[in-house]
Amino acid sequence: MSSEFRVGLLGHGTVGSAFAGLLPRHADRIERLTGLRPVLTGVMTRSNGSFDELLEDSQLIVELIGGLEPAREYVLRAMRSGRHVVTANKQLLSRFGEELWEVARVEGVQLRFEAAVAGVVPVIRVLQESLAGTSIERVHGIVNGTTNFILSEMARTGMTFADALAEAQRLGYAEADPSEDVDGSDAAAKMAILARLAFDTPVHIDEVRYEGIEQIQPDDLEYARELGLGLKLIGTAELIDGGLSVRVYPAFLYPRHPLASVNGPFNAVTVESAEITEITMSGPGAGGSQTASAVLGDVISAMIPPASTPETSQRLPIVQDVESAFYLHLEVADEPGVLAAVAAVLARHEVSVKSVFQKGLSDQARLVMVLHPVLESRFSAARAEIAELDTMRAPPRAIRVLEEEFG
Amino acid sequence: MSSEFRVGLLGHGTVGSAFAGLLPRHADRIERLTGLRPVLTGVMTRSNGSFDELLEDSQLIVELIGGLEPAREYVLRAMRSGRHVVTANKQLLSRFGEELWEVARVEGVQLRFEAAVAGVVPVIRVLQESLAGTSIERVHGIVNGTTNFILSEMARTGMTFADALAEAQRLGYAEADPSEDVDGSDAAAKMAILARLAFDTPVHIDEVRYEGIEQIQPDDLEYARELGLGLKLIGTAELIDGGLSVRVYPAFLYPRHPLASVNGPFNAVTVESAEITEITMSGPGAGGSQTASAVLGDVISAMIPPASTPETSQRLPIVQDVESAFYLHLEVADEPGVLAAVAAVLARHEVSVKSVFQKGLSDQARLVMVLHPVLESRFSAARAEIAELDTMRAPPRAIRVLEEEFG
Repeated sequence: MSSEFRVGLLGHGTVGSAFAGLLPRHADRIERLTGLRPVLTGVMTRSNGSFDELLEDSQLIVELIGGLEPAREYVLRAMRSGRHVVTANKQLLSRFGEELWEVARVEGVQLRFEAAVAGVVPVIRVLQESLAGTSIERVHGIVNGTTNFILSEMARTGMTFADALAEAQRLGYAEADPSEDVDGSDAAAKMAILARLAFDTPVHIDEVRYEGIEQIQPDDLEYARELGLGLKLIGTAELIDGGLSVRVYPAFLYPRHPLASVNGPFNAVTVESAEITEITMSGPGAGGSQTASAVLGDVISAMIPPASTPETSQRLPIVQDVESAFYLHLEVADEPGVLAAVAAVLARHEVSVKSVFQKGLSDQARLVMVLHPVLESRFSAARAEIAELDTMRAPPRAIRVLEEEFG
Repeated sequence: MSSEFRVGLLGHGTVGSAFAGLLPRHADRIERLTGLRPVLTGVMTRSNGSFDELLEDSQLIVELIGGLEPAREYVLRAMRSGRHVVTANKQLLSRFGEELWEVARVEGVQLRFEAAVAGVVPVIRVLQESLAGTSIERVHGIVNGTTNFILSEMARTGMTFADALAEAQRLGYAEADPSEDVDGSDAAAKMAILARLAFDTPVHIDEVRYEGIEQIQPDDLEYARELGLGLKLIGTAELIDGGLSVRVYPAFLYPRHPLASVNGPFNAVTVESAEITEITMSGPGAGGSQTASAVLGDVISAMIPPASTPETSQRLPIVQDVESAFYLHLEVADEPGVLAAVAAVLARHEVSVKSVFQKGLSDQARLVMVLHPVLESRFSAARAEIAELDTMRAPPRAIRVLEEEFG
């Protein structure tokens, strides 16, 4: 039997309760991966539980109560008692980050905070580790999913800001009090943290200039569309003449910008430097289960030695025959019955046609089809039979089609 | 004076020489970050140098000679002597990964290989660390920049595969012998590595089914465009009925797929799971300096304790007044001279106009402009003055425009 890894949880709101549910569900998997079995030692809320007891029982504290105090005090006490800490608290880090990171260094404990910025998009880890050797010049981010959803809806439907906000609240993408999201201050806190990591300089949230999206009118989006532009709430941190500018503002983007295609309640961050050109990362920016998943990733990281590739714990059979949709391109004689003959072969192999079009005349005729997903072995058999038809002028050409899986 | 961290380099090709140049350029920065000064102890090539001496002098070996042997032997010997190893060798890992990771575990050394897959896109680290707690269901990737460039060019210009390949070679995106890129086997090796990490099961390159792009005809792309589809060389690793399918194939994508907008010599990987929905990461997939930068990120990671946020080493001044382009929306009286008056104010503040259009009639008239980048203080002054013009029917509305910096 392997040892336990004891995790104490502060907070039981949306993310806290999602995390409390996620940890036991993944305990087997994590034990296989790390050799340690993660166990939740207790959950403390603002009104319930003793922090001293939680601390005594735990090797790592997950802080999800939010706010500045008592979150700050708890995080400091945990680290000073030699416990690792995982937090999603962007307000805390954008105000007291230097103090907290200093204590983590002195105590030799880990302070991880991937979930504080951009939900499950691993931008903190990438800035701290992958890009540690890069001289970053600029970071652009869509770091608030609520406002990105609202702007996407306004652009898509022409509705007003107020209506799009109400829609976001109805779908759970905006809180009852949405002011920190829509006025830009939530994004400002996240950009302060990103800027600190990217540019190796202290950045306090009060140094971040921000504007929100409350003033955006539907006709701004309409005119912009005529100009070929899309609207996002953008956070920027960039070097300018030896100084640093960190700001949050609504901005129009040209369609080729890497952030232009990020729609709905998504987050995305682009990092630019001369050596790497640019990296873009995107994913869901909010939601209890996504944020809890980022928290769990941090907890596991605290359990594994760096750069370890654990032994495989299973040996999955390799599947060769899978389902695919296909594009099928046939050069055919332009005579009656060609389509019927091809369709008959497909039907016999239970391959069904999604769309078809025919082009050209005489010996230049083309029959182009898109087929519904089918086992590849079945498609291959049908294709071989079609190739034998008298009316074929060249071997059939086929290319797979990835079905639209995304929302 | 801080201590040294001694790095031995195997290989001096495109990536090796880029790395040898990058390391000293970043030595000061890395020393500030880690407290250790990285030093290149020597460079060994296939024809020059003694591996025993290099090993003796180094704490970490960077393997960039490529191929299977003697790369495998060197990596094994380095780890068995207690040295960390950083490698970009996808062929080696997709064939001998299990053996190498086992030795790394036994010896307690780090074996890092971010640069082996997707260049500077940090997909290895994200799979190994950020997503360690996630039950991944599917990975889709564009993991070969050469073929993505070729397909992008074919789609953009209508040229043939042969012409697009020649263009890729001319621009340095394809090697003189491009066969491993265009036949899909390079992508297959990378997908074997990604599948191993994502699904916790051994995957050998021989288990990856692959097809290349040599057979793609210009008219396939043309018909596909009519169907609203774009073509990519896609690698897929996914769970199917308790088994694993890993394959590489050209595929048409619908425009909303996260990989559809990845054009040119770029790589991108999308990871899907129920908890996280999906994460997409993209960036340049090849190039000596980008790959060398990923190698350097791995070297630095081996030098830093996990999850450390080093002390800041500078205090950059915060810049408040930056340049921005603006969209300016004016509700104006529809009378002669309005545009002239607005233009005069802008000119006096040295704000220059990129485009302008006017819409509507009588009291519904709108003047919408896009301005070239200008210091925000200068724009604010102009805007305040425009607000005072008699012909304004409402306060001017302004939204920033992010200039097209990409592509």
